[in-house]
Amino acid sequence: MYELLYKKITETISITDEEFDYCKTLFLPKKLRKRQYLLQDGDVNKYTAFVSNGLLRSYTVDEKGNEHILQFAFEGWWMGDLYSFLTDEPSSFNIEALEACELLLITKPSWELLLNRIPAFERYFRILIQNNLIATQKRLMGNLSKSAEEKYVNLLNNFPGCLQRVPQHMIASYLGITPETLSRIRGQMAARK
Amino acid sequence: MYELLYKKITETISITDEEFDYCKTLFLPKKLRKRQYLLQDGDVNKYTAFVSNGLLRSYTVDEKGNEHILQFAFEGWWMGDLYSFLTDEPSSFNIEALEACELLLITKPSWELLLNRIPAFERYFRILIQNNLIATQKRLMGNLSKSAEEKYVNLLNNFPGCLQRVPQHMIASYLGITPETLSRIRGQMAARK
Repeated sequence: MYELLYKKITETISITDEEFDYCKTLFLPKKLRKRQYLLQDGDVNKYTAFVSNGLLRSYTVDEKGNEHILQFAFEGWWMGDLYSFLTDEPSSFNIEALEACELLLITKPSWELLLNRIPAFERYFRILIQNNLIATQKRLMGNLSKSAEEKYVNLLNNFPGCLQRVPQHMIASYLGITPETLSRIRGQMAARK
Repeated sequence: MYELLYKKITETISITDEEFDYCKTLFLPKKLRKRQYLLQDGDVNKYTAFVSNGLLRSYTVDEKGNEHILQFAFEGWWMGDLYSFLTDEPSSFNIEALEACELLLITKPSWELLLNRIPAFERYFRILIQNNLIATQKRLMGNLSKSAEEKYVNLLNNFPGCLQRVPQHMIASYLGITPETLSRIRGQMAARK
């Protein structure tokens, strides 16, 4: 369960076997069945999760009952509501397993211990958060300036496995378009092939 | 010119006077007149800028010629196109001085030197980028789920000096609404007071 975590960490930073052994003691393994929740809005996000296996999504529900998806997390990704995790404020997000998941959870105190004890993890998380920021800025600018089709093509490029694993209506929600618009775009793209 | 930089850094991390003296040697002071550009799209973003004085904005121009603002940066903030800065790829952003500016510029090699020589800066930039990510996620979710008025109120809360210093049409662009919609919202809010 820890192999993928080791692989992802050592892609970015160098750590010794002893350091990784210590790191492992800070995580809590957790399994979720499909449709189970890691976090429900109104609760504080006590854990950031590393996805060893499976697929999660985070989303908010607006006053009209519409869902808005912030993120999907596949194997090797991290998932959590950073704001709630860091501030202990109630979250406005739900985090749901879209497939059966194997997760490695870490609490804020354990995460801080990890950062203080092995400073290379400051670099690891700086780079991780930096990549997430670049992707989020790109998505934000795309929402303001790109057509629905361009946004869809970007999504396919960024998450190649997405179409096979994520229901259509959630892809539409992620893109901020209706399922009908998404169907139309897919039809047009198929016709052009 | 370096006082504000020192203040902002030491709000987050502890560094010695010697370390800050070293840090200073890595920055290049630069003045911009109002309307001058720090970066134009198509160029590589060679410098990340700390704003000692003044105000900048970063924006893209879409195929129809519409501007979309990613960020404003006031005194004490950092400004740059992180993606282009890190990858040496051409930027799709313009960075323009909205007021006369005093900046402290740092190149990527100097920035990497700073991170390697004084590891506390890994923590500083991790926290800086983390706060930016939280704000960007909030804005992204707001664009999908909030009304124009809610987005405007959020902007005023986040950047109290914004209304006095940023032209109306740029505030509208940042919010992704037309200047006419912004005028209407401001009229309605004034009438309710």
